[in-house]
Amino acid sequence: MTTDFAQRRANLAALLAGADAILVTKPVNVRYLTGLDSSNAAVLVRADGTARLATDSRYIEMTRDLGIDAVEASDVARELATPGVGIEAAHMTVAVFNRLGEGIVPLEPLVERLRVVKDDDEIELLRTACAISDQAFADISAAIRPGVTEREIARVLEARMVELGADKPAFESIVAGGENGSIPHHSPTDRELRAGDLVTLDFGAQYRGYHADMTRTVALGRIADWQREIYDLVRAAQRAGREALRPGAEAAGIDAASRSVIERAGHAEHFRHGLGHGVGLEIHEEPFLGPSRTGRLEDRVPITVEPGVYLQGRGGVRIEDTLVTREGGAELLTKTTKELLVL
Amino acid sequence: MTTDFAQRRANLAALLAGADAILVTKPVNVRYLTGLDSSNAAVLVRADGTARLATDSRYIEMTRDLGIDAVEASDVARELATPGVGIEAAHMTVAVFNRLGEGIVPLEPLVERLRVVKDDDEIELLRTACAISDQAFADISAAIRPGVTEREIARVLEARMVELGADKPAFESIVAGGENGSIPHHSPTDRELRAGDLVTLDFGAQYRGYHADMTRTVALGRIADWQREIYDLVRAAQRAGREALRPGAEAAGIDAASRSVIERAGHAEHFRHGLGHGVGLEIHEEPFLGPSRTGRLEDRVPITVEPGVYLQGRGGVRIEDTLVTREGGAELLTKTTKELLVL
Repeated sequence: MTTDFAQRRANLAALLAGADAILVTKPVNVRYLTGLDSSNAAVLVRADGTARLATDSRYIEMTRDLGIDAVEASDVARELATPGVGIEAAHMTVAVFNRLGEGIVPLEPLVERLRVVKDDDEIELLRTACAISDQAFADISAAIRPGVTEREIARVLEARMVELGADKPAFESIVAGGENGSIPHHSPTDRELRAGDLVTLDFGAQYRGYHADMTRTVALGRIADWQREIYDLVRAAQRAGREALRPGAEAAGIDAASRSVIERAGHAEHFRHGLGHGVGLEIHEEPFLGPSRTGRLEDRVPITVEPGVYLQGRGGVRIEDTLVTREGGAELLTKTTKELLVL
Repeated sequence: MTTDFAQRRANLAALLAGADAILVTKPVNVRYLTGLDSSNAAVLVRADGTARLATDSRYIEMTRDLGIDAVEASDVARELATPGVGIEAAHMTVAVFNRLGEGIVPLEPLVERLRVVKDDDEIELLRTACAISDQAFADISAAIRPGVTEREIARVLEARMVELGADKPAFESIVAGGENGSIPHHSPTDRELRAGDLVTLDFGAQYRGYHADMTRTVALGRIADWQREIYDLVRAAQRAGREALRPGAEAAGIDAASRSVIERAGHAEHFRHGLGHGVGLEIHEEPFLGPSRTGRLEDRVPITVEPGVYLQGRGGVRIEDTLVTREGGAELLTKTTKELLVL
């Protein structure tokens, strides 16, 4: 893969609209613009597209083959800041900003805007991340059985993703059995799974920096009618959301296409988070889908669709895919079935 | 374990020195003060020790058993901010700060200061994190052999830590073979290990939020004299650093105790990072050990000692332990031998 980082910097320069330069300090944005994967670096991109990189002694040797002017510094932002330069206000801390002196201009996220539409290289990395996630789920599904704890399931699932080539898990996996399924972001505990549980697994692989995100809810043996009903409901809502994904569609409209299915069934109160979010170098990035989100989807935007129904103290269901918007219908990257799996 | 979060909040209140209240938004600090492990929450701690927590819909159900007044909000900082309140300037972004309106006071890190000295519960969690790291290294050391890639070693090591009960790896593991050992923060690649390589492994387990950190450099078969020399040198420097760790010792003095060993051997230029750092809820936290670091160590402070020698284009050695300062001599938490392991 020969990612054209200089082109990405030129694209950023074209967004500067009058500012002299932008000082990018958010690590994934530095990585996107230069290829340097570090926890501490800054890149100054000037309006003419030229750039300068600063990082500390831990990473300076990694800059040698990046084709960019690089300097070692302990305070990377201060090294490159001059009056008139813009900074990433949504990332830079108040403490760093106050150290830069006068004349620094807080800017809205610009690199994030560039990152929304992915190139073919990026989509291929996401495809791999999702394929690893699917395969890991298939490989460990036999381990999801009564008597095993949520924590143990998370452990084997994450270990399997790494064995299959993931950099690491894309985020802390959620494994929620029975009543814990009513907590959308439940952390795995030592609760043992039991026959009759619905078990929600929300997980994904990170591959070369790119994040997969998927959720499946499975049944352990025979489940009650109310569990089956909310499963079928969430599945229908998730399908409606996927079908609404297309270039030009409004973020709130896509959310409504899915949410209205849940609302019509009388469960509006039980689905209180947004429908989905972009994925890429971050696990949650623009665009976001939700009732009050604005903007329209573009082509080639990787995004999740993940409605849920959560009944406090009883349990819940969430189903989530990662897809990529395409003219003619979204490309599904997470391919595990959404039929109810009874394990 | 019955951690006394209310006591921690009272300790913070005692540091406020005239401010009305502090709005804590850094996730690990919120966790330290309340027990809530989330990516988006804020806790307002008032001078009288009372407190209020805000988090979003994903985490609100997790607040029920925390014994603290909690409210659901989408903008958690804005929900709790009022004129006169202090904020964490080293954590809060410029964008959030500018949304809070007038009269907000940037503060230096206070919770971090509280977190330096650990209680018995915290040290026990670190002991477990380090024991998992030691065991994982022992279990996978047979896999470190010619023909295996750096990436594969990182994979099996991280998977093993998770199997042994880690939440996850404490950070992205470093596996650096041969010439890659000259890059202190090298990311594992598809380079195959070869006979005659020194291989540096820097890794650790996270256990219930607490981070272990250790480094060993091993030899694959027969190595050259220069490799053996720098190994013995770094080992001697690391021992000198460990022996200098005691309550009351100065940060720069501990660094010098170790660094001077390397300097006397003519390798001053080849050891350009600090000697060590605190560990706890973060992998890098106060106190830091380095030539220009100030302050003295207290008792019961978990900290790393990790000198290295890096010869550009040739290779390097680093040896690192996690220890806890104690009257009468530091407690060693990472117990893998520092004899040169020839695999």
